[in-house]
Amino acid sequence: MKTKGIFYHAGCAVCVAAEHGILPALDADRIDIEVVHLGKDKARIAEAESKGVKSVPALVVGEEVFHINFGAALAALK
Amino acid sequence: MKTKGIFYHAGCAVCVAAEHGILPALDADRIDIEVVHLGKDKARIAEAESKGVKSVPALVVGEEVFHINFGAALAALK
Repeated sequence: MKTKGIFYHAGCAVCVAAEHGILPALDADRIDIEVVHLGKDKARIAEAESKGVKSVPALVVGEEVFHINFGAALAALK
Repeated sequence: MKTKGIFYHAGCAVCVAAEHGILPALDADRIDIEVVHLGKDKARIAEAESKGVKSVPALVVGEEVFHINFGAALAALK
């Protein structure tokens, strides 16, 4: 069974570098990635916050949150 | 051709969570991952630093450095 993954970002340079650097390296047979642009889809900021996301870019794999470098604080996107 | 990846860590709880959460999700057909424990292999701290690593855990994919959450500053490992 594939693991659900969500990549939260806000389109910043750090976000784009993480998206282009890490997502293509993921195994699509094992992980299903959804990419969410929180700058455009503000309705999902509360969802990201509820999962423990504090900054973007962040990769959520199952229940684990992996903040990747630092692009922007989640609070700054509200 | 596979991309070279290096996962630098120091065995801390944040490092172990990142190792167990992200490395299994990577596509072994596309990326060759080397895991380096900088607490045990101090000779490679300078190498990590030269690649731009500032804290661990960090995943270096090609020339890009992705710090994952924050386990410890590289300086603290010296």
